[in-house]
Amino acid sequence: MDKAVEELDPSLLAIAQELFEQVRVATFDGVGVSRASYGEGETRAMAIIEAHARAAGLICEFDPVQNLVIRAPDEPLGAPVLIGSHLDSVPQGGNFDGLAGVVAGLLILLHYRRRNIAPPRPVHVLALRGEESAWYGKAYMGSLALIGQLTATDLDLKHRESGRTLREDMQALGIATARIEAGERLFDPATVAAYLELHIEQGPTMVARKWAVAPVTGIRGNLRHNRILCKGETGHSGAVPRWLRRDAVLAVAELMTRLDEHWRVLQQMGMDMVMTCGMLSTDPKSHAVSVIPGEVTFSFEVRSQEQEVLERFHALMKEECERIGRSRGVEFQFDRRLYAAPATMDPGWVDRFTQACESLGIDMEPIPSGAGHDAAVFANAGVASGMVFVRNDRGSHNPHEAMDPQDFFRGVAVLHRAIIAA
Amino acid sequence: MDKAVEELDPSLLAIAQELFEQVRVATFDGVGVSRASYGEGETRAMAIIEAHARAAGLICEFDPVQNLVIRAPDEPLGAPVLIGSHLDSVPQGGNFDGLAGVVAGLLILLHYRRRNIAPPRPVHVLALRGEESAWYGKAYMGSLALIGQLTATDLDLKHRESGRTLREDMQALGIATARIEAGERLFDPATVAAYLELHIEQGPTMVARKWAVAPVTGIRGNLRHNRILCKGETGHSGAVPRWLRRDAVLAVAELMTRLDEHWRVLQQMGMDMVMTCGMLSTDPKSHAVSVIPGEVTFSFEVRSQEQEVLERFHALMKEECERIGRSRGVEFQFDRRLYAAPATMDPGWVDRFTQACESLGIDMEPIPSGAGHDAAVFANAGVASGMVFVRNDRGSHNPHEAMDPQDFFRGVAVLHRAIIAA
Repeated sequence: MDKAVEELDPSLLAIAQELFEQVRVATFDGVGVSRASYGEGETRAMAIIEAHARAAGLICEFDPVQNLVIRAPDEPLGAPVLIGSHLDSVPQGGNFDGLAGVVAGLLILLHYRRRNIAPPRPVHVLALRGEESAWYGKAYMGSLALIGQLTATDLDLKHRESGRTLREDMQALGIATARIEAGERLFDPATVAAYLELHIEQGPTMVARKWAVAPVTGIRGNLRHNRILCKGETGHSGAVPRWLRRDAVLAVAELMTRLDEHWRVLQQMGMDMVMTCGMLSTDPKSHAVSVIPGEVTFSFEVRSQEQEVLERFHALMKEECERIGRSRGVEFQFDRRLYAAPATMDPGWVDRFTQACESLGIDMEPIPSGAGHDAAVFANAGVASGMVFVRNDRGSHNPHEAMDPQDFFRGVAVLHRAIIAA
Repeated sequence: MDKAVEELDPSLLAIAQELFEQVRVATFDGVGVSRASYGEGETRAMAIIEAHARAAGLICEFDPVQNLVIRAPDEPLGAPVLIGSHLDSVPQGGNFDGLAGVVAGLLILLHYRRRNIAPPRPVHVLALRGEESAWYGKAYMGSLALIGQLTATDLDLKHRESGRTLREDMQALGIATARIEAGERLFDPATVAAYLELHIEQGPTMVARKWAVAPVTGIRGNLRHNRILCKGETGHSGAVPRWLRRDAVLAVAELMTRLDEHWRVLQQMGMDMVMTCGMLSTDPKSHAVSVIPGEVTFSFEVRSQEQEVLERFHALMKEECERIGRSRGVEFQFDRRLYAAPATMDPGWVDRFTQACESLGIDMEPIPSGAGHDAAVFANAGVASGMVFVRNDRGSHNPHEAMDPQDFFRGVAVLHRAIIAA
């Protein structure tokens, strides 16, 4: 007897698995899945979801930034609850990151149709584009564009592979970027009752604690530089003595080692933060085994639930660059800093999810989200927002993520029961 | 009165400058010069040298590995003195590295012709291909092939850009690689009297000490890995806590920082060595700002005049990898180690160069070479070898190298006087 698994029409589990598999196969890149924001894979995934929704008699529409909105033809009046997540992925990423939340929303609409009941309240599924920062160096593009916070500078960002700008790729999909650029609000937060998102947990806590589903209390914000340049001086690797070198690799290595040590201590002292240098490279055009590296580019990211920790660690990083610059004769040049604010989830939804879990016999505790989500954008725009995590092994942003379909089904049940309770 | 500048026919200075400029323009890449080993730029440089030599009535021939050999038609009998250097460059490199030595040799042959005198002894100019390791990850290919020490594994090495093998590129030039692969000696060390090489200094010592020319006592050897892989685990940069991360960037940063500190101490204790990590990169296909880097590849090089220092520092590096691997949950995978032995220059030639400098009024002291040169290969093959450095500002392996033409002319004068004295 598993109440959570039996909450919804049992036929839906097979449908979910079929949808996951169809999208995976359609966006497989040989290693994982690649669904570039505003690119082919994302569009392919969206087409599969849309086709399935239409076949089930649901209504599909596109908002002004080409996010897909699915709703029931027989919904009651009132402000809708949005159930949203994203359809893009990182390069060589995992299949469930984002997609699970869209399929979850769709399953709830399908549940009403299977059971032949009208939705208890309007529920709109929002399949967002452009959540992942991996492609243009900017996250939450789909939701930020909706609330008028995607800037002209953001639209100038270039795709990591094609070099085309976000503006060009949006326009190719028929998105009127002039309205985005003007900062127009293409979505009014006052018109919706809530934004809910189901997502796989991207950390290891729930596997360790044996929690199948857990409500999310808040979302870590982040502060980033996509590209910091450390400029030293190239030179012959055999002939320049130590004291005359301006080696960019050794300078960046020292920076990272020092920041890593600071992080260790700050965490020990109770601060919530993680730090990552995900991209690092000497100059591929001119580097060589026998050339002292005169140039290193690297990314920098710090995440925390506390805005103050983000700001202070960023300042500490710049101070270390200054110090290392002086001692090693190198110079650090910073691109624009990118900031995504931390967000608090609506306490009412945290409670409803918690009660739904308890009534379904799911052991859990509410936990914070280390990763960012579109829910943070909606929450900071004033929408009552809630998130449900589903247990997932082996992390995310890699092809090895592993979500048990039964756990997913339990998560959808929690979402369903909380919506009824609202 | 500058005896050194007046040693040779004065018209030769303009010829040298014209040759340097022709080769520079023909191989300019927009930043520096690019003369890929066994590639277009190298061949273009060789054609310019060959054309000039032929126009002056000199005999041009190609040895079995397509190095250019230039000699006078009226040379006396006897074992020749080789004056050699290389025509390739690193990518975006400097114009004088290698080329200066070839032009120096040519100038000596031209001097005899201008003055209408027969060479005092046979002098052959050897314009070598394939000295730089930047293209295939292997240095001294042209000279090693001659003495039967370029292996089949070396021939399998791939060009950094085209991906073609060294074997393919050699064959495209008509080189019979089967003979190289068989380890055949294509050159008999016993048939030559000496191998002499003029080269720009690639370090800053001579500028600092105000020496225009200096004899070289020995050549640092090196021990290299072109590609070490540090394997950790990718993961979501926000969601994986510190204790569960296997971050390859932080692991390699720690390795480099530790090795840098060891180097500082060992140098302080009097050991001759330099260490360089010239190439370093996260995986360009899958890295992202928001992904914990699961993979870093990097090169490693240590240079020293002492074979024992090379071996011991290499062992120390592997030990540190082992230790960091354990503490950070990463694994280091090593490609084949490449070794170039240190070499001692022939004391007779060091003396002759020293006396030539003194008699020409050039202030200097004999110094070791931090960089590697084909002279090391010839010396270790049993050929009496000597080198002359010419002062050069701003290092080499970069487009900013700066050699005063007068200094170059002084270096050629030293070479000329030493050959007469031999």
